[in-house]
Amino acid sequence: MKKDIKIPQATTKRLPLYYRFLQNFANAGKQRVSSQELSEAMKIDSATIRRDFSYFGALGKKGYGYDVNYLLDFFRQILDQDEGANVALIGVGNLGNALLKYNFQKNHNTRIVVAFDTKAPMEGHEINGIPVYHPDRLEEMYQKYNVELAILTVSSRSAQMIANRLAAINAKGILNFTPVRLNVPDTMKVMNIDLAVELEALIYLIRNSD
Amino acid sequence: MKKDIKIPQATTKRLPLYYRFLQNFANAGKQRVSSQELSEAMKIDSATIRRDFSYFGALGKKGYGYDVNYLLDFFRQILDQDEGANVALIGVGNLGNALLKYNFQKNHNTRIVVAFDTKAPMEGHEINGIPVYHPDRLEEMYQKYNVELAILTVSSRSAQMIANRLAAINAKGILNFTPVRLNVPDTMKVMNIDLAVELEALIYLIRNSD
Repeated sequence: MKKDIKIPQATTKRLPLYYRFLQNFANAGKQRVSSQELSEAMKIDSATIRRDFSYFGALGKKGYGYDVNYLLDFFRQILDQDEGANVALIGVGNLGNALLKYNFQKNHNTRIVVAFDTKAPMEGHEINGIPVYHPDRLEEMYQKYNVELAILTVSSRSAQMIANRLAAINAKGILNFTPVRLNVPDTMKVMNIDLAVELEALIYLIRNSD
Repeated sequence: MKKDIKIPQATTKRLPLYYRFLQNFANAGKQRVSSQELSEAMKIDSATIRRDFSYFGALGKKGYGYDVNYLLDFFRQILDQDEGANVALIGVGNLGNALLKYNFQKNHNTRIVVAFDTKAPMEGHEINGIPVYHPDRLEEMYQKYNVELAILTVSSRSAQMIANRLAAINAKGILNFTPVRLNVPDTMKVMNIDLAVELEALIYLIRNSD
């Protein structure tokens, strides 16, 4: 991969999808695939796919398409899929509880290893086999469980305060389910999933299509 | 708004966010705001904000910025925020159950009015005040509750089948939480929220930042 090229966030978000669909093609015994076939399977237009792939160098051949296994190796390397990541979940309310039970593990080794909730006892208890501690022990347990990133499902009013504490211990990333736009240092990556915003955007699309 | 211009989906997704942050500025008593101020509050770079706004015509004045109330009226109209929408939730598992309890209603009248689950009795029962019916009654209740769009939280293997049934009754939109890429007619809008993909993309960002 060309290390000096900055890949757009929209492309980044599609990388795990490419990986998943290439796995499907490989599992179906396909050895090569065209951008058109990927486009139909993934519901992404083929120009976007070709542009995305171009960020990583010329991976396809005209009239041949892409070699499935080569691409798969390539994306596996890029995504570090084999390595996995330890995830902390902060805030075990309705959504947090659902995510604790959600299977993030299907294709890789990434999983929630520890959770935090204000209602949990200091000594911790288990939900779904995952230890849940009081947030007072956040910093201690973050180190102990070797956490790489946090899923934030706390209330809006606690979100920035938790983000500050994570920044103070050099945490690297937050998957932010709160509607708050977090202030964090540049060294920390934040990905926002705002369910109300997604819903409103869909309503807009429905009402403004021709 | 220029009706002939196709607005990119990335811009569309930011519209509800603009609306929310403009409300914050208005609530704080601000009458005008610069793209820089919006940029700092929203964590979106100001060039993106100016480009987004340009899709809707020249809304700001150089050296003055944007008129908060004018923008607020403008986005309210675009988003039809006053009208609200009736939403159906299909699949009351862990995630579906969390979404039933999630408050989509904060700033508008959009809400889940009916839900469906294979474990619900034919005559229906209530969860959190929301009627839940067996999926056999999907088509009937979709009409009865005047549903505009569906949140899909069923298992992967049921997702396409449910999408087909929704397409058959001319349903307009799906907020798709399953990892399946749905085949739907062009008249139907689909927005995908794939939690595993978001998590993987964040891990990629963390590991590939300089």
